[in-house]
Amino acid sequence: MIEKQQFKRIRAFIARHKVERGRDFRLKDHDPADTGGLADADKPEAQAWLKQGVEWLAEEQEKLYAQDRWAVLCVFQAMDAAGKDGTIKHVMSGVNPTGVQVTSFKQPSAEELDHTFLWRAARALPERGRIGIFNRSHYEDVLIARVHPAVLAGQKLPPALLGKKLWEQRYEDIRNFEQHLARNGVLVLKFFLHVSREEQRRRFLERLNEPEKNWKFSTADVRERAYWDDYQRAYQDAIAATASPYAPWYVVPADNKWYMRLVVVAAIVEAIEALGLRYPETPPEERAQFAELRAQLESEGRKRKR
Amino acid sequence: MIEKQQFKRIRAFIARHKVERGRDFRLKDHDPADTGGLADADKPEAQAWLKQGVEWLAEEQEKLYAQDRWAVLCVFQAMDAAGKDGTIKHVMSGVNPTGVQVTSFKQPSAEELDHTFLWRAARALPERGRIGIFNRSHYEDVLIARVHPAVLAGQKLPPALLGKKLWEQRYEDIRNFEQHLARNGVLVLKFFLHVSREEQRRRFLERLNEPEKNWKFSTADVRERAYWDDYQRAYQDAIAATASPYAPWYVVPADNKWYMRLVVVAAIVEAIEALGLRYPETPPEERAQFAELRAQLESEGRKRKR
Repeated sequence: MIEKQQFKRIRAFIARHKVERGRDFRLKDHDPADTGGLADADKPEAQAWLKQGVEWLAEEQEKLYAQDRWAVLCVFQAMDAAGKDGTIKHVMSGVNPTGVQVTSFKQPSAEELDHTFLWRAARALPERGRIGIFNRSHYEDVLIARVHPAVLAGQKLPPALLGKKLWEQRYEDIRNFEQHLARNGVLVLKFFLHVSREEQRRRFLERLNEPEKNWKFSTADVRERAYWDDYQRAYQDAIAATASPYAPWYVVPADNKWYMRLVVVAAIVEAIEALGLRYPETPPEERAQFAELRAQLESEGRKRKR
Repeated sequence: MIEKQQFKRIRAFIARHKVERGRDFRLKDHDPADTGGLADADKPEAQAWLKQGVEWLAEEQEKLYAQDRWAVLCVFQAMDAAGKDGTIKHVMSGVNPTGVQVTSFKQPSAEELDHTFLWRAARALPERGRIGIFNRSHYEDVLIARVHPAVLAGQKLPPALLGKKLWEQRYEDIRNFEQHLARNGVLVLKFFLHVSREEQRRRFLERLNEPEKNWKFSTADVRERAYWDDYQRAYQDAIAATASPYAPWYVVPADNKWYMRLVVVAAIVEAIEALGLRYPETPPEERAQFAELRAQLESEGRKRKR
């Protein structure tokens, strides 16, 4: 349970990290080490809130599923080692997996490259009643595809369509796509886990030095660090161009994992609370049959006992 | 082969039926019995043109496939018995089926209803190098869904989203969707096979009276005739709202099958010709190896003979 009073605090808490209008958005106004005024000493309390949020989410997901009208889509984007996988794990463990669909977008397949860049995202959209998690997403096509011209070249567009306005058109297509989702019952929430270059370096070293973390280490990830500034610019442009009231971005400070997770769960709680989910009510005409059906089931029991 | 001079004539011929801007579009300006000035005596010539067009299409499809950059999407919408199936058959038979993907949209499945109305269309989009045929399409959601409120109710939208602007929003979502396709290498062509009420009556009677056509007859189709005017209005509104230079509508007179087929093939020929398809050229560095590889294959043959 979360008290009504608490939701007000959650709304105030999350406002700091929510971007609904891209105009004037600048990534450098957001500090990856920000903890919203909370100190290390507040960590135990923050963890208790996280737990409470996850429990509330599990309950709401049951209503979402029973009602079968809304779907929720959470998009996660970040530089490597920012903590996408860990955040998804911590925020979604506890929710009934029947109601959650996680899609990890890797290098596109030949079949995917044979379609438009939104195709694979559209196919993977969550059904009504479910929470869909995109671990990476259609935003890769305005991030890595923008930073690495070879990736764009691999998308097999007719050369006549590779005009100057390509990125603007992609942003617009994404806006329109998300607007369509919002209009048709998909709550769209987008998370940029914002890690600092120094913290990424520290985490890469951890992966190199701790044997049980070695499996996470990839030499390619370290090579991508050379494009750090290009990526930051691409993220800033993408967020500025696609933040909207119907599909907000959350710029989540990611240098402190405990705070990152708290922000993500708070954002999801705030957005789902606004839907006002309720278990569907049984229509009166169906309810009228309940007494009869109850009697029938009870008499069947009595017959068996004889 | 089609001569260069002929393409000019095709462009002039098709202009009469092509709608690229919906403003001022009125369905009643289009006569279902129109034959573009051709008389019954011209039928043999029209059939020869149709054959020539289909052959040209088969050749171009090979280039489309070899080039693997563009896809073509042909959307067919019509009242019952207007001739969708027959037209698809006559225009596409002759083209290598490997390069053609026909999708017939029937009553949506439970899984489809659990997604937005564009989802099933997006999933069925043709791959690059292929011609996709939609027999019915995403337009059903602004046609039958508009005429029959029960169909809309079955789409499980959250009630909060069923506002006054619903249809305007759907038109806009469709425009945006098709714009995205056009920007990403899908040539979108939309055909409304425009049959008159009287001709539909005649064809239904044919289905009832000719035993080998009985299987096509459905009592539900006749019942839908009661909504004729509602459908005409829905078609007019949909075409007016979604005709665009990047995804034109063709309002095809459908009372005469021979003319209907000619118009459809001419429209596809005109649009594909504008793409200027060519077989991909082998890069010089690869071509340089040809002599060597040829020698190798030939010497292998000589060794075998010994």
